[in-house]
Amino acid sequence: MIFTDALVIGAGPVGLFQVFQLGLLEIKCHVIDALPSPGGQCIELYPDKPIYDIPGTPRTTGRELTASLLAQIKPFNAPLHLGQTVDQIDQQPDGRFQITTSQGQQFTTKVIIVAAGVGAFQPKLLKVDGLSAFENSQLFYHSQPKATVSQHVLIVGGEDSALECTINLAEQGAAKSVSLLHRRDIFQANQAAPDLLARIRALARVKALQLLVGQVTGFDEAAGKLTAAQVTGVDGQIQTAPADQLLVYLGLSPRLGPIADWGLAMARKQVLVNTETFATSVPGIFAVGDINTYPGKKKLILSGFHESALAAFGAANIVFPGKNPQLEYTTSSTRLHRLLGVDGQDSGSSST
Amino acid sequence: MIFTDALVIGAGPVGLFQVFQLGLLEIKCHVIDALPSPGGQCIELYPDKPIYDIPGTPRTTGRELTASLLAQIKPFNAPLHLGQTVDQIDQQPDGRFQITTSQGQQFTTKVIIVAAGVGAFQPKLLKVDGLSAFENSQLFYHSQPKATVSQHVLIVGGEDSALECTINLAEQGAAKSVSLLHRRDIFQANQAAPDLLARIRALARVKALQLLVGQVTGFDEAAGKLTAAQVTGVDGQIQTAPADQLLVYLGLSPRLGPIADWGLAMARKQVLVNTETFATSVPGIFAVGDINTYPGKKKLILSGFHESALAAFGAANIVFPGKNPQLEYTTSSTRLHRLLGVDGQDSGSSST
Repeated sequence: MIFTDALVIGAGPVGLFQVFQLGLLEIKCHVIDALPSPGGQCIELYPDKPIYDIPGTPRTTGRELTASLLAQIKPFNAPLHLGQTVDQIDQQPDGRFQITTSQGQQFTTKVIIVAAGVGAFQPKLLKVDGLSAFENSQLFYHSQPKATVSQHVLIVGGEDSALECTINLAEQGAAKSVSLLHRRDIFQANQAAPDLLARIRALARVKALQLLVGQVTGFDEAAGKLTAAQVTGVDGQIQTAPADQLLVYLGLSPRLGPIADWGLAMARKQVLVNTETFATSVPGIFAVGDINTYPGKKKLILSGFHESALAAFGAANIVFPGKNPQLEYTTSSTRLHRLLGVDGQDSGSSST
Repeated sequence: MIFTDALVIGAGPVGLFQVFQLGLLEIKCHVIDALPSPGGQCIELYPDKPIYDIPGTPRTTGRELTASLLAQIKPFNAPLHLGQTVDQIDQQPDGRFQITTSQGQQFTTKVIIVAAGVGAFQPKLLKVDGLSAFENSQLFYHSQPKATVSQHVLIVGGEDSALECTINLAEQGAAKSVSLLHRRDIFQANQAAPDLLARIRALARVKALQLLVGQVTGFDEAAGKLTAAQVTGVDGQIQTAPADQLLVYLGLSPRLGPIADWGLAMARKQVLVNTETFATSVPGIFAVGDINTYPGKKKLILSGFHESALAAFGAANIVFPGKNPQLEYTTSSTRLHRLLGVDGQDSGSSST
């Protein structure tokens, strides 16, 4: 059981900046996210696309923005609990919340701040009867391959993440065989980055990997182990692809998940909040970023940043009742400089 | 007379980002500011102090943030009308506003967005009877010196801007004499940047400038022209300092000014707004940034950024009635890419 002041659900840009705003008010927090790394939609949907509307940053990308935010919140050392979702939430008689994640991690927290964007990103599954029995032993979704040296590895997907996984395994000679399966010719599909496609082409030329076109429609097993996938091609022909490990990258799609069952007042799948503290209808639970709604709401990252600042003050009223924290500025407050680890550094020209 | 969709009053960080948000919605705008350069409080109060709470920017300064915002709004070519304040505002029968500035510039605009922060920065005046008669001919406040080659120039003040002006004139040999007057010994006063003080010291050593300590308590004139300032020292002695030009840098202090008389509903010198569009009580006038107030308001730059985005949508409803513009994203919208001048550039890996 982890005891904390605040639990932030979602490690997208708004959830990360929420850590910063809580930190300035000396509210300790932990962060949970369904994805294996922080960044949320920024990383999942547009890691390398330019973003032009972050104020004061004329051009960045999802990846760069995430890195900047991680650097910004570093002084606060908030633990990130990745690859897990909130399964259960119970309010205790003292008002605190007890939370259990899909990995069994338990938290007791005074406030919850939901920064879950469009919901938890869940992998799209390979829909083949009986195949799910191998999940987490030989079948993995959007995760790094396990030890593969003596294995035939079949990667399924046509987007960058599938190609990157394939290239890594093939370049390192880390498997007995490496095959990449996509429903279309990946060089025609126009789905992946040109430099990745060029590397795939080069590796295929020297037979460091095989390229397959088609869909998994069945599998072979022996002694309770997955041994091969049956692949149906566009011509209807079925071929057998050896597969001791099946790594599937069919994309992630967001699902609101159990948050919809928490009893929060909602409108059109969005959590209703007030614009004073971004509190939801349940005292102690706040919602910021794309998941909330209020009159005038625009789903902009910069709006989530503002919401996280006001939610931090709302949270402070619960975490430190009666204290009524005042706004201080990072340009001038020695308390904030100490928290940020920049006390004693040059703070520009001094004034009397 | 300049005709425009929107007039932004205030070229601080929020006013500048307001230009960006209006630009994305194709609302043409002009900007007015009392200061001679953009940046507002960022430039006037803490140009070189670190700022740590701009989201996605772990560390910047007032000067750097201003430069970034100017770069960000460059595609929209919004004219900045600096060194002037709004003197008069009249609403026409068709709902548009007619505005006259202190420099006599006139505008007709469909909407006004007040981003005036703590008010218009006005210079603190040298309080010497009769001296104001020379203002803008031989007496200047916080502005660049005019042609000075054959003139004795007396600079008054102890902060960076006074020292910079003094150094420029002395290093260029641009005046018959250059004197810097401060009420205290500038090397003791601990008010200016060390590098500027070092340059002043070096220039004084070679007699490229004179350093005076005291206050202006009178002046000499001849044939209607200012010829010298009478300076009273800390010992009460009066000396005469030749001054064909008197450049005064005693600091700027903000004044809300005529905005207080526009009939906007206010609370504690702040303009009341709704949090849906940041509209004031007067239709067509919006207020964003430190000048506004609403439940939960925190005077944070990042809140002003959010407010400017929603105010832009509010303004669009007046500028383009019935059009109801939809939110588009700079990561994906080809319309926004065209507006930002980045169409045709690499926008990361394409997707189907």
